Amino acid sequence: MGRTVLTIAGSDSGGGAGIQADLRTFAALGHYGTSAITALTAQNTTGVQGVHGVPPEFIEQQINSVLDDLEVHAIKTGMLFDADNTRATVHALQSHYSGRTMPPLVCDPVCVSTSGHTLLVPEALEVLTKDLFPLAALITPNKSEAELLLSRPISSVEDMLNAARDLLLCGPRAVLLKGGHITATLADVDSLSRAHLELRVVRDGLYGDNMEILIVNAPQATNIVLDVLCEADGPTTVLVRPRIYSTSTHGTGCTLSAALACTLADGATVSEAARIASAYTYLGIQTASKLGSGHGPLNHLHSVARISVPPRTPTNPYPFTQLLINSSAGIWKEYVEHKFVQRLGEGTLARESFIHFIKQDYHYLKYYARAYSLLAAKSNTFPHIDSATQTILNILREITTHRAFCAEFGVSADELEQTREASATSAYGGYLMDVGMQGDTTKLLMALLACLLGYGEVGLWLKRAAKERPESGIVIEGNPYRRWIEDYSGEGYQGAVRVGLETIEARASADPPSAARLAEWRAVWERCTRLEKAFWDMALDVKE
Amino acid sequence: MGRTVLTIAGSDSGGGAGIQADLRTFAALGHYGTSAITALTAQNTTGVQGVHGVPPEFIEQQINSVLDDLEVHAIKTGMLFDADNTRATVHALQSHYSGRTMPPLVCDPVCVSTSGHTLLVPEALEVLTKDLFPLAALITPNKSEAELLLSRPISSVEDMLNAARDLLLCGPRAVLLKGGHITATLADVDSLSRAHLELRVVRDGLYGDNMEILIVNAPQATNIVLDVLCEADGPTTVLVRPRIYSTSTHGTGCTLSAALACTLADGATVSEAARIASAYTYLGIQTASKLGSGHGPLNHLHSVARISVPPRTPTNPYPFTQLLINSSAGIWKEYVEHKFVQRLGEGTLARESFIHFIKQDYHYLKYYARAYSLLAAKSNTFPHIDSATQTILNILREITTHRAFCAEFGVSADELEQTREASATSAYGGYLMDVGMQGDTTKLLMALLACLLGYGEVGLWLKRAAKERPESGIVIEGNPYRRWIEDYSGEGYQGAVRVGLETIEARASADPPSAARLAEWRAVWERCTRLEKAFWDMALDVKE
Repeated sequence: MGRTVLTIAGSDSGGGAGIQADLRTFAALGHYGTSAITALTAQNTTGVQGVHGVPPEFIEQQINSVLDDLEVHAIKTGMLFDADNTRATVHALQSHYSGRTMPPLVCDPVCVSTSGHTLLVPEALEVLTKDLFPLAALITPNKSEAELLLSRPISSVEDMLNAARDLLLCGPRAVLLKGGHITATLADVDSLSRAHLELRVVRDGLYGDNMEILIVNAPQATNIVLDVLCEADGPTTVLVRPRIYSTSTHGTGCTLSAALACTLADGATVSEAARIASAYTYLGIQTASKLGSGHGPLNHLHSVARISVPPRTPTNPYPFTQLLINSSAGIWKEYVEHKFVQRLGEGTLARESFIHFIKQDYHYLKYYARAYSLLAAKSNTFPHIDSATQTILNILREITTHRAFCAEFGVSADELEQTREASATSAYGGYLMDVGMQGDTTKLLMALLACLLGYGEVGLWLKRAAKERPESGIVIEGNPYRRWIEDYSGEGYQGAVRVGLETIEARASADPPSAARLAEWRAVWERCTRLEKAFWDMALDVKE
Repeated sequence: MGRTVLTIAGSDSGGGAGIQADLRTFAALGHYGTSAITALTAQNTTGVQGVHGVPPEFIEQQINSVLDDLEVHAIKTGMLFDADNTRATVHALQSHYSGRTMPPLVCDPVCVSTSGHTLLVPEALEVLTKDLFPLAALITPNKSEAELLLSRPISSVEDMLNAARDLLLCGPRAVLLKGGHITATLADVDSLSRAHLELRVVRDGLYGDNMEILIVNAPQATNIVLDVLCEADGPTTVLVRPRIYSTSTHGTGCTLSAALACTLADGATVSEAARIASAYTYLGIQTASKLGSGHGPLNHLHSVARISVPPRTPTNPYPFTQLLINSSAGIWKEYVEHKFVQRLGEGTLARESFIHFIKQDYHYLKYYARAYSLLAAKSNTFPHIDSATQTILNILREITTHRAFCAEFGVSADELEQTREASATSAYGGYLMDVGMQGDTTKLLMALLACLLGYGEVGLWLKRAAKERPESGIVIEGNPYRRWIEDYSGEGYQGAVRVGLETIEARASADPPSAARLAEWRAVWERCTRLEKAFWDMALDVKE
């Protein structure tokens, strides 16, 4: 659940800004969000319809509730509303961290909303700069906020650089001055670099060196957005990104400062954090769908995707296998409870059917061993080569007992070898080889496991039915096929089933499939389940 | 960004319950969350330290701001605090939806917190049941809330069934009575089923039919949790799950009702929604890490995972290729700006080196054509077979011109064929075949594209340097290798580069790689980049 981050900010009913944007950002970046609300707004994409300030004592109480119970790894402040609430924030933080190191504090000096609504009363400015800024690891003013804080206009890239340096004098350890409202081009960055050789320029979302093949196919505009990061104990960095035009910008500042708090909580340096958080915010604007009739919210969740296999838990250690079985439950049931199996369990299966089955199974096992050989050939670690090879050795041992078993039913080794392959056998065997050729080892495992797990399932239910459900007609004692049932329900085979289960669950956890890949795996599983059923149909048909 | 959902509830500073849990749930299930806050709490995992009620007018104002601007697809209510705020909620919803269909409303009748704090003053109960319940698609009381609402104790599964049915009389279209605080076993469910044949039993997280292989390897406890869902126009459903023991349960009710709102917004029926939302909530408890010293929050984000390749955007349509190049930028630069290439561009490359290179390239192209044949053999759609085959045809055409080109440099077709393969050629060619054998088509493409894209990059930078940077020494006019440069910078080859770029970007979008798979793809890309560099080292070494 990540690290714990605290936001002290206003609430935006419309969800695009304030603690709502902060909490969504924390979640999208893998962190646990807590919040102290300084003021409520009735707000939507068109503007702020109302503000309800929260009493300063209650802000302190919220902050204390969080800090007294949880270890917080970064804090951000957003809209603080008025001087008393700003003072309450400063007081709560200073009291809690008196004599202790405060985690990184990102202060977004929110003064005016995107829609032009005043979010900080003017009297609070002094408290903000004098009392809160000195506690901050980083402050993140935009152009208008910097102008308000410095009482002078900012209209060029050079002005931005000077403003960021002057704001550093208020005491924060770093200033990130956001240039979204300043028009600039790549040429401006070049001349800025030439005039200030000490500047580090970070091009984010812009092509780097040796990317002519990309540049020629998708040229980038020369209009850029430029942020300036001044650090008290570090270099000055200019972050440059292509300018984009979008109305999905409501809550951009909240999102950026929330993302900064997350990356600082992760232990990033301020300049790494600025790069990561800006890139996150920028993608949030670019991938947003239009929402509402005014300035809509960013898409905060571009950094995550829905997973397709549930996590393993103590009550369900085999979620992937369950998903496979459930996704083709009907055909799985037709396979494992096939009439062939039922009759075999009752001991009423025609001897000819069984003989036909074991002859064809002999051919099938040749494919099966070859498919595991292909699996070994495709593996690139010794444990994987070992595991596939052990299975081949098991199959080869099974063949020896298979021959003996056939002999009991009057089928000689020679007759076994000479038996013509039935088309159900060829279809199944060919499919195994084809999947093995086409895909990777996990896809091949999906094909191999329908047989391994299905026969394990058959062995177990026959054994349990014989023991617990006499009305099922299943018997082991005196059953002519007793040995077959005991083989598949026995510890040897069931041990292999356990290994198989563990293998696919581990694969699905270590390399979680995309929806497309899961669909492919499910299709392979289902196809093999059908081929298994067809195999038994074939064996039964020989008689009926 | 999904559909829009509104929560009308309290704020929990600790983040585990209230609108914070709701917003995290909405995000985790892919929806956009908006909120109207009814009361603030100063709260953490140990309890509620303070409550600040929000004035009823301001609740209405928040609801109006949301509904006036955004189309909302589901609404949930949580802690409503007092009678006035409950009335304000009812009034705002009724006014907005007067004469219109209200989206599904899930009402979680929050009365008391997990820690025992009163969250709804008693006078509000009547407003809740008389005015709000009749608007609800579903109400979700727990045992204590149902006892408070019905003024009678609930202590058995049978009591639950009766309570759910009686609560339906208050007017909601369905009641989901949560049995987390009632002890029950699978045997209780069986006897309940026998006594009430009309009941549907949904076993969630419990094994289904034909899963003996799972049951035998991970038996499930017989203690269960049971929820009862009564629908006014539908059957009564009992949802059954294995009981788990955890202290990460703070906000369970909020999470469930938020997840219900999401699934109803998706268009699910109430009983589907109950199944999906319960499973989501249950996994949230099971996968939570302990946080705080009391009852910690659920893990809401088990349903999503961080993505490893950024989305394609208008300003960056090739994020995956950029990621590959950036992830091995040093070796990529050594490859595309190799001294061999530089000298070739200057026209100063020793003729022997170039001849050695084109002889070995002839052998390499044989591997390259075979690897594309393998790609065609591994493809299972006609367009993919077609695309690989077109590339093979291009390579075969290239071979014809390659022979002519060699002839110009005095190398006969016979000499070309007889040339012994250098070990750099065998290493690279063998690696292509090995990757093709080991993995799926995407992995093979990663191996094939380092050559395609790298030669495209070389062609373009030589051409641009010749044109724009005379100081580079690169010339085309009069260069003995002019034809080579023109071939790789020309439209024919660059068209193939474009197709290659589009192919890998489309693969990475359609089948987003897990972190493990991305690491594998990057390793293949980097290995081929190194093999490419080694190829040029080899050609240069013949002379130096």
